[in-house]
Amino acid sequence: MKRKGPTDTGCPVLRSLKQVGDAWSFLILRDALGGSTRFDDFQRNLDIAPNILSGRLKALDEAGLMERRRYSDHPPRDEYHLTERGRDFRPIMQALLAWGNRHFAPEGESVVIVNRETGRQAEPVMIDRVSGRPLSDPVFAQAAGPAASERIRRRYPAISEFLQAREAGR
Amino acid sequence: MKRKGPTDTGCPVLRSLKQVGDAWSFLILRDALGGSTRFDDFQRNLDIAPNILSGRLKALDEAGLMERRRYSDHPPRDEYHLTERGRDFRPIMQALLAWGNRHFAPEGESVVIVNRETGRQAEPVMIDRVSGRPLSDPVFAQAAGPAASERIRRRYPAISEFLQAREAGR
Repeated sequence: MKRKGPTDTGCPVLRSLKQVGDAWSFLILRDALGGSTRFDDFQRNLDIAPNILSGRLKALDEAGLMERRRYSDHPPRDEYHLTERGRDFRPIMQALLAWGNRHFAPEGESVVIVNRETGRQAEPVMIDRVSGRPLSDPVFAQAAGPAASERIRRRYPAISEFLQAREAGR
Repeated sequence: MKRKGPTDTGCPVLRSLKQVGDAWSFLILRDALGGSTRFDDFQRNLDIAPNILSGRLKALDEAGLMERRRYSDHPPRDEYHLTERGRDFRPIMQALLAWGNRHFAPEGESVVIVNRETGRQAEPVMIDRVSGRPLSDPVFAQAAGPAASERIRRRYPAISEFLQAREAGR
């Protein structure tokens, strides 16, 4: 019997997780974002069984995150390139990297992000492009978007309620 | 036989993933960041089997992401609160939300982040706090940190190499 997984209520977090699957897929995307394109590169760096790697690459291809391109006909060889959707996964990886470095690296940092121009280590932080403020600021709240299901609308206020509260507070 | 998972090479991305486990744990953290603290709240909102929920909460407690606090002795009832480590998971959740909204919400956005003061929808973007530039800028590269293993040092240049390249380019 297949164990029942989380129900899709339209939540974007779950939708994202469903595309990626498991830790192996995260690590394949990590290596692809780092420049790997060939089966052998992935396999060597991840120390992963070929059948598992091949299944995960197929799933990432089907989910539209990676694209298979033939680079040799004799023998048949393919490369795997990130699509725009796959490249857009980068902030998630950087957020995982920052969290891991902060909390699970008692021996010190193993991988960091560096600004090539200055040689300085970057400090990843998530901000709102509109206001420029860090999203950790309590001024930010979750709201039900235009396509929210009944279940999500029961849980979060609509955007219009924030606008009304703002008008009322004037 | 337990399937062989990824080897811990010190990579912070994998370290982070190992703390969280699976989609259920992500969703429990999502709800905890949204304010849920009680077993019944998690269960109702996630539509999750009690034994699975209970196991995941225990694992999150053991990983130091959540903290169990007794709020009633008769009958015995506990609340689950995020620790600092758990609260620091927020940027990962926000990055997953942004990615899901951009790529996997063909019917429109279901959950969004709103600025309470302005009522405007936030646009999450990951930047470097030091330079203020978006981390999607190609100026940023991954580097081996001070605690990098042999395997990671083979894969990424050390921070000092970026500094030397910068000196050489002057």
